[in-house]
Amino acid sequence: MKRSTMRPENVHQATLLRLLRDGGRSRAELADVVDLSRSKLNVELDGLIELGLVESAGLAASRGGRRSGKVRLSPHTRFAGIDIGATSIDVAVTNGELEVLGHVSEPCDIREGPAAVLDRAVDLLGKFRENGLFTQLHGAGIGVPGPVSFPEGVPVVPPIMPGWDRYPVREAIGQELGCPAMVDNDVNIMALGELHAGLARNVDDFLLVKIGTGVGCGIVVDGKIYRGVSGSAGDIGHIRVDDLGPVCACGNSGCLEAYFGGAALAREATNLARSGRSPYLAERLAATGELRAEDVAAAAAQGDAEAIRLIRDGGHRVGQVLASLVSFFNPGLVIIAGGVARLGHVLLAEIRSVVYRRSLPLATGNMPIVLSELGEIAGVVGAARLISDHVYSAK
Amino acid sequence: MKRSTMRPENVHQATLLRLLRDGGRSRAELADVVDLSRSKLNVELDGLIELGLVESAGLAASRGGRRSGKVRLSPHTRFAGIDIGATSIDVAVTNGELEVLGHVSEPCDIREGPAAVLDRAVDLLGKFRENGLFTQLHGAGIGVPGPVSFPEGVPVVPPIMPGWDRYPVREAIGQELGCPAMVDNDVNIMALGELHAGLARNVDDFLLVKIGTGVGCGIVVDGKIYRGVSGSAGDIGHIRVDDLGPVCACGNSGCLEAYFGGAALAREATNLARSGRSPYLAERLAATGELRAEDVAAAAAQGDAEAIRLIRDGGHRVGQVLASLVSFFNPGLVIIAGGVARLGHVLLAEIRSVVYRRSLPLATGNMPIVLSELGEIAGVVGAARLISDHVYSAK
Repeated sequence: MKRSTMRPENVHQATLLRLLRDGGRSRAELADVVDLSRSKLNVELDGLIELGLVESAGLAASRGGRRSGKVRLSPHTRFAGIDIGATSIDVAVTNGELEVLGHVSEPCDIREGPAAVLDRAVDLLGKFRENGLFTQLHGAGIGVPGPVSFPEGVPVVPPIMPGWDRYPVREAIGQELGCPAMVDNDVNIMALGELHAGLARNVDDFLLVKIGTGVGCGIVVDGKIYRGVSGSAGDIGHIRVDDLGPVCACGNSGCLEAYFGGAALAREATNLARSGRSPYLAERLAATGELRAEDVAAAAAQGDAEAIRLIRDGGHRVGQVLASLVSFFNPGLVIIAGGVARLGHVLLAEIRSVVYRRSLPLATGNMPIVLSELGEIAGVVGAARLISDHVYSAK
Repeated sequence: MKRSTMRPENVHQATLLRLLRDGGRSRAELADVVDLSRSKLNVELDGLIELGLVESAGLAASRGGRRSGKVRLSPHTRFAGIDIGATSIDVAVTNGELEVLGHVSEPCDIREGPAAVLDRAVDLLGKFRENGLFTQLHGAGIGVPGPVSFPEGVPVVPPIMPGWDRYPVREAIGQELGCPAMVDNDVNIMALGELHAGLARNVDDFLLVKIGTGVGCGIVVDGKIYRGVSGSAGDIGHIRVDDLGPVCACGNSGCLEAYFGGAALAREATNLARSGRSPYLAERLAATGELRAEDVAAAAAQGDAEAIRLIRDGGHRVGQVLASLVSFFNPGLVIIAGGVARLGHVLLAEIRSVVYRRSLPLATGNMPIVLSELGEIAGVVGAARLISDHVYSAK
């Protein structure tokens, strides 16, 4: 496949592309927000039109004087967003403005290893191409459920991804698709999705707490993902909640993940079913052979007191950890996302109650705690945003 | 006093000034690191020379071809750094490179209120002027021991600063000294001092934990102070260590500050003295009428088992909180500073032991935890850095 190399030639062009991605503007409106004379602006826009990244789009409404020419990103621009979870894969194709043109979600076991899983992603994209959604991709962003060395584009000792350690995901996908590629962990790309199209759209500093099989946190500082010096920032699943708590898979005791998250919930629900304390869960266990977080949600929706207690206890533990992080980080917003977040408002109410009681008043005075509204597209939109940030940067 | 208004005229000039501040360079060396043609670089440098901010300084050693002209910041540039603590005031005058030309430290009670304390700062600077250290200041940075609204330059509901709430510190100092002024909290300016001249000189992302009367944390992201959305980031003194812990002044129970810090140590030491468990501390209490953190340090140095236990317990609590923050933030370095940090290596060993055991291995793999080596000048150097960042920015 031909490798796409279209990139802006300087920082001004890169800035213009990002502005156009984040909302259409006329030349006059662009001139208002970039630090360029009108003639230099036109030189840069002409350069972008020549590169095929931007095109003219008629005249804008008059702002009093002569009508200004409208410009927009090339309608042929296409990004791929690939969100690989522990048990699922989501693939989407977007235009230059990161609007989702096609999205597919399928069950997929990360333990099948990188070759099989990445082939699957490429196949799913191939179907979008056959359906005419794109002819050439301009970039692909990939999220994986484990720690990533961002500069190298490889997973690093990921606990639930056997066979993926240091596998060259970025290089493999880039070669296969013939376009630039970037890899990050799944929580960071969800945070980027919320930043681009979700509740964090106008928030510079926020936290996204993903409660799935495990618990992780995406950290956004000044509109950019903060990854820490070795890329592990936000890895909050093993923060200590209680010295006397259950032993965690990591070897320590009392970690947040040992108390809460999909794995802990499934274990607790099974205990409740077997001990007969929850007749509803006992029935589900007998019917399906195993219990998952969804079963706890269903039980709670039926008014099962033990299921509701499980969710409240979990929310309390998450709230305790979050209260410390809110005092430390003073974010403008906290978003709760991930499969277990679908436990919904019982969970949210408990988290809120602990954080608003335990964090500094100065930090919580104007800080909403909300459930994600983007749901399952957060990851793919964030992955597209990740690669577009790269493609729309100067060479 | 004449107001100084010399400021660079554009971002290029601002960048050049900061480069010169952080290490002298020839024109050729500057051209290597800034994105300007050699002729444009010379235009900007000439502009700075005309403004009196920069001056020529002979020829650099040859790098093979023609010898390049050296430039340096004007030797007449002077910044003031003012570090106001709960019980002390430090004032310094620096040159443009932030080298300390004069420094004075005096006891001072913050409870005397802003008018008296700020007058004191101005008087101390007046003595430096009388001694010929400067004729005109180009800027003044001020640190205060409480939360600050950074954009407004005023303290906000500071718990230990009666009379200071929303007092216009920045404006008052700026008018009094006839130069630009900036105010931040004492922990942030210490972190800036470490960034400029201390152990964090080449570290982009780090934490400075100040253990004084209370406990606070300075957060540096990408070489800049991270303040959070309402300026309270790093306020870790009220993070919960234990639900069943002592009641804190804030009304919650089990806060870090309720366990450790100068105030908690003084209380615990007094208990040890009165109960007779520490004969050494009992003797000191009888001699001086009150005990402070320094007495615990002295007792520990004498081998007093109870004093050593106090320090270890405190280090353990600090370590527990820090372990969570290190997992979350993945810093490149943690610096322990403040009066109580003088408890020294018993404290440091305990903090290290807990953090290295409880944080993610990926986060601690290459993360030193060290005691500050700057000591009491960290605050004044950081205050000078704060205002120089402002003065050396484009108008």
